[in-house]
Amino acid sequence: MDKRFVYADNAATTHVSSEVLEAMLPFLQNEYGNPSSIYALGRRAQKAVEEARAKVAAAIGAKKGEIFFTSGGSEADNWAVKGTLARLAPKGKNHVVTSVFEHHALLHTVEHSGCPCTYVPVDSKGLVDPAQVRAAIRPDTAIVSIMFANNEIGTIQPIEEIAAVCREAGVLFHTDAVQAAGNVEIDVERMGIDMLSLSGHKIHAPKGVGALYCKRRCLPQNLIDGGGQEGGHRAGTENTAGIVGFGRAIELAAAGIPEKVRQVSRLRDQLISGLTQVEASRLNGDPVKRLCGNVNISFEGVEGESLLLMLDNRGICASSGSACTSGSLDPSHVLLAIGLSHEVAHGSLRLSISEETTEEDVAYILENVPPIVERLRAMSPLWERLQKN
Amino acid sequence: MDKRFVYADNAATTHVSSEVLEAMLPFLQNEYGNPSSIYALGRRAQKAVEEARAKVAAAIGAKKGEIFFTSGGSEADNWAVKGTLARLAPKGKNHVVTSVFEHHALLHTVEHSGCPCTYVPVDSKGLVDPAQVRAAIRPDTAIVSIMFANNEIGTIQPIEEIAAVCREAGVLFHTDAVQAAGNVEIDVERMGIDMLSLSGHKIHAPKGVGALYCKRRCLPQNLIDGGGQEGGHRAGTENTAGIVGFGRAIELAAAGIPEKVRQVSRLRDQLISGLTQVEASRLNGDPVKRLCGNVNISFEGVEGESLLLMLDNRGICASSGSACTSGSLDPSHVLLAIGLSHEVAHGSLRLSISEETTEEDVAYILENVPPIVERLRAMSPLWERLQKN
Repeated sequence: MDKRFVYADNAATTHVSSEVLEAMLPFLQNEYGNPSSIYALGRRAQKAVEEARAKVAAAIGAKKGEIFFTSGGSEADNWAVKGTLARLAPKGKNHVVTSVFEHHALLHTVEHSGCPCTYVPVDSKGLVDPAQVRAAIRPDTAIVSIMFANNEIGTIQPIEEIAAVCREAGVLFHTDAVQAAGNVEIDVERMGIDMLSLSGHKIHAPKGVGALYCKRRCLPQNLIDGGGQEGGHRAGTENTAGIVGFGRAIELAAAGIPEKVRQVSRLRDQLISGLTQVEASRLNGDPVKRLCGNVNISFEGVEGESLLLMLDNRGICASSGSACTSGSLDPSHVLLAIGLSHEVAHGSLRLSISEETTEEDVAYILENVPPIVERLRAMSPLWERLQKN
Repeated sequence: MDKRFVYADNAATTHVSSEVLEAMLPFLQNEYGNPSSIYALGRRAQKAVEEARAKVAAAIGAKKGEIFFTSGGSEADNWAVKGTLARLAPKGKNHVVTSVFEHHALLHTVEHSGCPCTYVPVDSKGLVDPAQVRAAIRPDTAIVSIMFANNEIGTIQPIEEIAAVCREAGVLFHTDAVQAAGNVEIDVERMGIDMLSLSGHKIHAPKGVGALYCKRRCLPQNLIDGGGQEGGHRAGTENTAGIVGFGRAIELAAAGIPEKVRQVSRLRDQLISGLTQVEASRLNGDPVKRLCGNVNISFEGVEGESLLLMLDNRGICASSGSACTSGSLDPSHVLLAIGLSHEVAHGSLRLSISEETTEEDVAYILENVPPIVERLRAMSPLWERLQKN
């Protein structure tokens, strides 16, 4: 097969769709007013921001006044946790419950806070048990934060059950839905979610914009103080173009979920069944409770980074862990959390496909990965040792 | 004169220039890689971010490793102050020195921190006296923050002298240079500045991007924790398009400063001399130590918001206080700080012009403002009362 370009790293980031760019462009051209200005140019910018807010709210079953724009998912996670701790610590509540395999925006925030934290374990498929969340909640628990769907292995958590446990215990429940949005139907009201983080660039909006959904009764202390933007809760001149793009992107994404899940999970399962035929490979994460576009496979005796570079050479963009930590040589904390050894975790490949992935792309991946794995193993002392045992 | 469109609110925000948009567009189209990804698409995005960082550094005389991208000036201010307090409070330093007329991103951050703060006064022209900064510094002072140039009245502070005072006292010096950038030559090394906040959208880059310059030895604690972006100091997938646009914008702005100052201050002075001929008007701020594009005039007996709406009706975009607080009915804290009464402060008009403002724009403003002031005064009970006294 001729060399193609196959982007299979949509969990790291996505391209800005043409519809989204089209919605943004006026705000990068003539509609440059500051949304806080009172003249017509400013009022039009403000109107656009408010329309985007309504779209984000509608996409997740929230009210418009519960959506606060941020610079992305990491800011939203930081704000939710730090701001809640700042608000509740003076009332004697500063304990956090989270899982061992959250995104670093959550884990590092909790670590650096110095607050007591209970880390709920996950099972070998990456699932959190709501009963263990219940057991971890203490009288001084300020917040429970469990991600909706994992960014590396794609496991989708029983969010409603976890939310119910929190509600029953009278504790705030936050979830990082950066990976879930656009892939899983979200209804914060029905699901009983108090706070939820979103990111634009995972759903075909640009990088640098996201949102925190938050029930008014549990608004965290400000992370960014200053002007009166976002109802006085998040200062800084609004990223108008980014916000408008995000609104359009989430509107499109939310409308297409059932069709996307049907189409993409079929291709995902082709990839999984093809790649797990490789000797000494294993699927990481749950085969069913899984994001429609997520494939995560470990190949024993292979070094993930070499695999990625050889795939890049064949025009395939993929990832080993999360892009945010790809500079690090440590194996993925997520893969360790589900019980993989350091060695096996190092040899993992994440493919994250989208509604734009084709049958030909899948065939091309299936044609290229196995021989590359074989070639890497042929050069690997680790593989040689494994073969002998 | 026929109705024109005159944008005279460049201190609130600017349009994205065509050169900047051109630089950004590839990153909103084909170059969508995550800068943390190791394949070629990701590496190209990373290279673009690093090139932009070098441009920002060059524009202010910093080293590349001292520039950290943020979502804007407010985040940079918050990070500098909150992060420094978080870092130094455990060492017994939690006192802040700032001025009474800083941007709210600074003032509200300090207020909400609950830390002790000494507010240095400003004189009737809006100037801070370095000797008063010296007098305000205490053994427990963690940081001094004085803005480079004021956003409302345009006064440019004696930054080098203030920095020298701080250095002598062994205290960190931060300055918000959001309004100064592109209008005043900045050389952080020569000027002895430890930390400095920048914003993109005031210099023809898009909204939603900015930077904190910070000497490595005084890096604040993270405001946004998570992935390893920005050397582990500011998490979140990089706003690639925004960062590239910001780099291009500051490169263009820094190169044009002498010419801009010459050209724009001439038009500014035409506006000032024309508008101060109106009865019972006064110029706010220093006539000389002033941003080249800033005009701030108070008209007694006039309500600023009505003035703005009538100017909008004539196609002129202007402001009364800062755009960030324009929703508020309180008079500007800056104008009160330089000694204006509430009533006079309410009747102030800020025009902020740019290198794109023409002689015709100036003539149009001068033709329109005085009759509008007259009309508003004719309807004003306050003006009537003033006339009788």
